[in-house]
Amino acid sequence: MTTINRQVLLASRPEGEPTVENFRLVETPVPALTEGQVLVRNHFLSLDPYMRGRMNEGKSYAAPQPLDEVMIGGTVGEVIESRNDHFKVGDKVVGMGGWQEYVVVNATQRGVLQKVDTTHVPLSAYLGAVGMPGVTAWYGLVKIINPKAGETVVVSAASGAVGGAVGQLAKVRGCRVVGIAGGPQKCAQVVEELGFDACIDYKAHADVKSLSKALKDAAPNGVDGYFENVGGMILDAVMLRANAFSRIALCGMIAGYNGEPIPMSYPQLLLTNRMKLEGFIVSEHMEVWPEALKELGTLVATGQFKYRETLAQGIASAPEAFLGLLKGKNFGKQLVKLV
Amino acid sequence: MTTINRQVLLASRPEGEPTVENFRLVETPVPALTEGQVLVRNHFLSLDPYMRGRMNEGKSYAAPQPLDEVMIGGTVGEVIESRNDHFKVGDKVVGMGGWQEYVVVNATQRGVLQKVDTTHVPLSAYLGAVGMPGVTAWYGLVKIINPKAGETVVVSAASGAVGGAVGQLAKVRGCRVVGIAGGPQKCAQVVEELGFDACIDYKAHADVKSLSKALKDAAPNGVDGYFENVGGMILDAVMLRANAFSRIALCGMIAGYNGEPIPMSYPQLLLTNRMKLEGFIVSEHMEVWPEALKELGTLVATGQFKYRETLAQGIASAPEAFLGLLKGKNFGKQLVKLV
Repeated sequence: MTTINRQVLLASRPEGEPTVENFRLVETPVPALTEGQVLVRNHFLSLDPYMRGRMNEGKSYAAPQPLDEVMIGGTVGEVIESRNDHFKVGDKVVGMGGWQEYVVVNATQRGVLQKVDTTHVPLSAYLGAVGMPGVTAWYGLVKIINPKAGETVVVSAASGAVGGAVGQLAKVRGCRVVGIAGGPQKCAQVVEELGFDACIDYKAHADVKSLSKALKDAAPNGVDGYFENVGGMILDAVMLRANAFSRIALCGMIAGYNGEPIPMSYPQLLLTNRMKLEGFIVSEHMEVWPEALKELGTLVATGQFKYRETLAQGIASAPEAFLGLLKGKNFGKQLVKLV
Repeated sequence: MTTINRQVLLASRPEGEPTVENFRLVETPVPALTEGQVLVRNHFLSLDPYMRGRMNEGKSYAAPQPLDEVMIGGTVGEVIESRNDHFKVGDKVVGMGGWQEYVVVNATQRGVLQKVDTTHVPLSAYLGAVGMPGVTAWYGLVKIINPKAGETVVVSAASGAVGGAVGQLAKVRGCRVVGIAGGPQKCAQVVEELGFDACIDYKAHADVKSLSKALKDAAPNGVDGYFENVGGMILDAVMLRANAFSRIALCGMIAGYNGEPIPMSYPQLLLTNRMKLEGFIVSEHMEVWPEALKELGTLVATGQFKYRETLAQGIASAPEAFLGLLKGKNFGKQLVKLV
């Protein structure tokens, strides 16, 4: 009996804002395994802002997503067939399975597929709090911002998978933590569920002056560390409140992902405040993953770490869910549930 | 006999571009020394871009220059009277003597006045290559850019005291060095005298695209380190040629010193190229001065290090010379010769 795999391909490159027409759903038979291969049934697909960059042809830190191929993406799932001694049927695994229901993995190469333990950590968390987003938060906060207890840390996209982790990791380190998020519901969740000290609804502020004023109230001692996911006006507003020797970890600039200009209005503040700014991509810092995952895994397993997931149902819903993510419609980690 | 000291005070704060009317020349009798004091005849006054910032009232990294007081500034000179055991008449000294012909120094505090050796290094060089500008270049290049042999380092205001030092220190470290300066004469000097591999005349380029193209030719392997003195369009153009993991040492942004907006057009490049950017002020890094001055002093004493000085004559010429410096009229270190 042939198993049919439903896959989402990149059909065309977006001009500006992507649409569902940029994607195409296809059905392909799952091929028979050869020696060393493993067949994984994907349970969850992770949707992440970085995927928008891959849809472009232009120069970026990673190769563009090829047209007419399965969209890349992180997945967790279960081994349902194996011709590899290191994996047996029933193993729970995390990997880069892509936007599809099944994936055949050449598991002979070390690291392409990782077994995970779901005794204390739910499977889906390996795509969020105890996965790439969690480690991204950890790297930017610990290795770039490196906050001291008592300092103030601000994070944008605070209700997202990365932002929520940044704030909670900063709280563990004794910081005052201020989030920036879109809408009163997200802000309430960030404060009440995630335990941030304050959260500013950027949608309630029409210009940089107003947003910066709100930040002054929420961060009366100024900003010592800023974890940036957004860019544009939000970055400007935070920079106006930056303290001397403050640090910016530049993780994302979603405000410019569709090609909008997002100039930094006051770069002279980087000089007058002797600031440090660093852009990073977590996949280039594999050396920190074990340490980061240990802290994140412990926090999740002991219930000290809160996170939300927004689930889309079925692979066909992935494009729509991805477009929603780019517009900030999700709460916490955006996943597609595939079983 | 009373000695008359001619001094330049800050008379008013500039609105935008400063003028000579912002300064006032006065004559004051030199007071008699009290115990511990030293009277110095200033031989050279250093004029530096940072002074423009001090003329403003606004928040910056340093307190504003008070109105109706002697303008601050680095000086070298000779002790002509002493009531301090550590200094004797004839000692050559460097300090912050200000825009005036004589200065009375309370030399009991360590570090306010430093004796210097003029056997191998000319006195004026302690205000330039073997002084604050030299150490500024050294700090930004060595501690922030930290270039490897074979990398490409770019520096703006390349014919200035700081820029010229950056390039020569980078050449010593085996880098390809590209300067950016204003006008064909400065560019020729930067290449022929200072030994840069190339120099781009930014005045020959009307827009960022043209300047960036010229930089592509001069730095065919891209830019690994950038020492920034200017900001604005020049920063944009260099960022368009920045390599992955490149570093920017942010030392000055003279393009914005009169309050002009100088937005950074493409901050997303900091992310896609995983760049590091750091603003700094050399006076906050006194720990590096001995090491930096040792290298700079040796290079000057052995004739391996080239620098030019532009001399204005007499204290009354200081305001005009300072305005010229802000417009880039000087070649190399701008000094006022006072004897």
